Amino acid sequence: MKGLMQNQPLLISSLLKFADRYHADTEIVSRTVEGPIHRYGYGEAAQRTRKLADALRRKGVGLGDRVATLAWNTFRHFELEHGVTGLGSVWHAINPRLSPAQISYIVNHAADKVLFLDASFLPLVETLAPGLPTLDAVVLMVARADMPKTSTLPSLLCYEEFIDSGQEEFEWPVFDELSASSLFYTSGTTGNPKGVLYSHRSDVLHCLSITGAYSMGFTARDTILPMTPMFHANGAWGFTHAAPMVGAKLVLPGPKMDGASVAELIDREEVTVTAGVPTHYANLLRHYEATGTQPPALRRIVVAGSAPAPSLIEGFERMGVSVHHIWGMTETSPSGTTSQPSRFAVTLDVDHQRERKASQGYPIYGIDVKIADEDGREKERDGNSGGRFMVRGPWVISGYFRDDKNVLQDGWFDTGDLAVMSGDNNIRLTDRAKDVIKSGGEWISSIDIENIVAGCPGVSEAAVIGIPHPKWEERPLLVVVPRPGADLSWNALVDFLEGKIAKWWMPDDVVFTESLSYGATGKIQKTELRRRYATHYTP
Amino acid sequence: MKGLMQNQPLLISSLLKFADRYHADTEIVSRTVEGPIHRYGYGEAAQRTRKLADALRRKGVGLGDRVATLAWNTFRHFELEHGVTGLGSVWHAINPRLSPAQISYIVNHAADKVLFLDASFLPLVETLAPGLPTLDAVVLMVARADMPKTSTLPSLLCYEEFIDSGQEEFEWPVFDELSASSLFYTSGTTGNPKGVLYSHRSDVLHCLSITGAYSMGFTARDTILPMTPMFHANGAWGFTHAAPMVGAKLVLPGPKMDGASVAELIDREEVTVTAGVPTHYANLLRHYEATGTQPPALRRIVVAGSAPAPSLIEGFERMGVSVHHIWGMTETSPSGTTSQPSRFAVTLDVDHQRERKASQGYPIYGIDVKIADEDGREKERDGNSGGRFMVRGPWVISGYFRDDKNVLQDGWFDTGDLAVMSGDNNIRLTDRAKDVIKSGGEWISSIDIENIVAGCPGVSEAAVIGIPHPKWEERPLLVVVPRPGADLSWNALVDFLEGKIAKWWMPDDVVFTESLSYGATGKIQKTELRRRYATHYTP
Repeated sequence: MKGLMQNQPLLISSLLKFADRYHADTEIVSRTVEGPIHRYGYGEAAQRTRKLADALRRKGVGLGDRVATLAWNTFRHFELEHGVTGLGSVWHAINPRLSPAQISYIVNHAADKVLFLDASFLPLVETLAPGLPTLDAVVLMVARADMPKTSTLPSLLCYEEFIDSGQEEFEWPVFDELSASSLFYTSGTTGNPKGVLYSHRSDVLHCLSITGAYSMGFTARDTILPMTPMFHANGAWGFTHAAPMVGAKLVLPGPKMDGASVAELIDREEVTVTAGVPTHYANLLRHYEATGTQPPALRRIVVAGSAPAPSLIEGFERMGVSVHHIWGMTETSPSGTTSQPSRFAVTLDVDHQRERKASQGYPIYGIDVKIADEDGREKERDGNSGGRFMVRGPWVISGYFRDDKNVLQDGWFDTGDLAVMSGDNNIRLTDRAKDVIKSGGEWISSIDIENIVAGCPGVSEAAVIGIPHPKWEERPLLVVVPRPGADLSWNALVDFLEGKIAKWWMPDDVVFTESLSYGATGKIQKTELRRRYATHYTP
Repeated sequence: MKGLMQNQPLLISSLLKFADRYHADTEIVSRTVEGPIHRYGYGEAAQRTRKLADALRRKGVGLGDRVATLAWNTFRHFELEHGVTGLGSVWHAINPRLSPAQISYIVNHAADKVLFLDASFLPLVETLAPGLPTLDAVVLMVARADMPKTSTLPSLLCYEEFIDSGQEEFEWPVFDELSASSLFYTSGTTGNPKGVLYSHRSDVLHCLSITGAYSMGFTARDTILPMTPMFHANGAWGFTHAAPMVGAKLVLPGPKMDGASVAELIDREEVTVTAGVPTHYANLLRHYEATGTQPPALRRIVVAGSAPAPSLIEGFERMGVSVHHIWGMTETSPSGTTSQPSRFAVTLDVDHQRERKASQGYPIYGIDVKIADEDGREKERDGNSGGRFMVRGPWVISGYFRDDKNVLQDGWFDTGDLAVMSGDNNIRLTDRAKDVIKSGGEWISSIDIENIVAGCPGVSEAAVIGIPHPKWEERPLLVVVPRPGADLSWNALVDFLEGKIAKWWMPDDVVFTESLSYGATGKIQKTELRRRYATHYTP
């Protein structure tokens, strides 16, 4: 027997429709690629987005067709996110930090039909275009006046002219909520990037979840600034879905991501909440500390990608800003845990509470979690028993796009992380499975050592990697980027680590370097570092 | 093309499974019908609920079968809510305040197979049982020791024995999320009660919505006490779904709903949030004012059913408790609006903000709203243009149970309320459509006058009704219940109203009475009052 409730499909078009109807004047503010600040309300955004969708439809883009973007966080990218998905076609947001060869690979793998790009990426696309045969059209995201005089692309279109070919009376189509909505390729450190294909259902459920008070806790009074690019997991981690869902003001920082430029927006637009990785926040903190100013309205920051260093947490807390670290990945839409303190956590002393803030939090409804052994058997939740961090739920991947490989084990997805879980279900990642250091048959957590080293005065960044060792199989090597002008020595680091880690975890050596190695999403690439120092212990 | 995400059905069993897995020690505290306080964790609740579901299965209860309860808010009722729905059968929560004839009618209309009841309802059920042929079993929600020596019911079962016939290894079945989950009859003032049949999908979506920061904003640190009975809309307005979804502590007050008894639980269990109708809160406030005490942890109260009087809002705000009035009805699961102040509302002065708090708030994602004329055409949103308050969305009714009548107009459900909407989308109910007063071709809002009179010293309760009038068709009559010992006069009331309402809205007369007339959900029954005073102006 079925219930007797209205069974409307969960479609992404409902988000902007809601904001259009009830928050039409609430602003979306963008720093454009061309420079000036652009602002308009959800009402105008919705109208232009309908025109865009209709223009795509007239161009022959239909249900399931892929439409790619190479763009920064601006209002036009927001229109594309909602217009392409609302039409029932699939938004493929390309990470411009991938190598040109990888970008060619994924455009062809996705068989993108149309490509929209910011002006900054035109030279790149002009170079790649001859190798991208699936593209029917390339659209430059500028006004007529900003179109280049010449381009090697024979039929380069202008965004503002393109959307003028659509009608604002366009009505959003209704289709199966299981339809694909958007496509994000993850840049593995080996092999070709793999595509995560979200559905309208998974996106709307994920969005309802992140607006929960136990998660990001957005309301219509929030002003949200995602520093996280929209080409990362699920459109700035779903923040560009959540803002219209609750009617929050949205501030999009464009390409200028230095601390001063972002702080200028945070201060002037009275931003209350941001999203970013630790590097974003380190830049911001440096700016506020250097200028002796404070953000006037910022109440909380969401940090993901990797754990914030204790010094980062303290720096923001000194400004009255609470720090929320959550764990997630492209394959989990990405939100997988909450960093809201638990009933137990608030009874801890300040130091332990701070420790918790740098851990990955506890599971939220919708994401089932287990720490498992090789056979998938759940391990003890005792804060000590490490294992594979596995997840399942309605916004977790079931397989990669055009890839036959089975990614689930009895319905569980292996995140590739190693973790422990405490008795009260707090999750702490100990390592990427492929980054764990195996010394004499035992495991050493590189992350634990890195977190401690990050607090050592004079350290800007640090990575601990396992290097082949003649006696112990692998031994840890500490790679440190010192702060400019800092006088750091191996002895100072050993003194700092002494007593904070087990004796046999102590790195056998340290190397100082000017820069680590970073992937397309800004994460440290340990594969690359291991290659760089491969023979350090076996000369 | 479909997305590649795990497509798990949205089932109510997932809520308690989540709490079992990640909040096993978080407590459910109940005041039992027998008297003592009972407490256990979600872990034990989940174990007993699995046994209950298995026992029902063994008793022959299957997918879609109706299982009724006549019970107060206690842990056993919580187990039934989650056990019956988790099994895929339909939980029919009966409002014991319906007349015996209505209860017989709905048990037969629902064709309930099993009935669970608290001891307080045994005499009633013994009387009705001969006329309830669909019942296979009747189970008394007590321990063996509390079973009565004799009963006229030939095979009365004991709850604790019943669940012991099930296995705790029982695993929750997986079925279509559109399946019916629970059945709540609304007691219209005329005709037979009508059944609202929720689905698992509508319930889980509604639950995700009310845990939103823009709605009730529950987190795992909350302690939730629903004064609202579980037999009202959707199991205490969905609060008994939301508590396990976020891992909040749940306090269930049992049958003792006087101010002192509820306050004792609020104080001792450190309740942070409650749900109730204005009468519940008036009782509570009187208790705190009389004892000169304050609730130690209460941060916010959710008020629905009807709007809180300004004096009630002020009383709680004096204790540092914020007041959240939301609008909803059984047909909307029930949550339909949010009372979180909007971006605009926080710029208003204190008086206007307080006025907003007694209004019905603005729409939330998932509930589309319009104020419409007779033909369904949307009216101006100008704070003035009144019309029919219509809604649609994934947790809005599409039809009543076993009732062929079409309840939708172009997909919209008519709430039966009249309302206006301001330019910034704030909704204010002006009347029930059937309660509006038509004087000389113009409408008078009874609610507006009642809200003002509620603030007059010496007034305990007031209702304004339209009474047939020889010249004006109808004219308002003010019916007042004075506070004990208060010296209230018609002149004092007129003086109080003077200048606060239009001259022609002034009631032509006032009658003082000891009590108004209330329906099964505690709402004032104006039909009955109109009958009582029908000839007041036409003697």
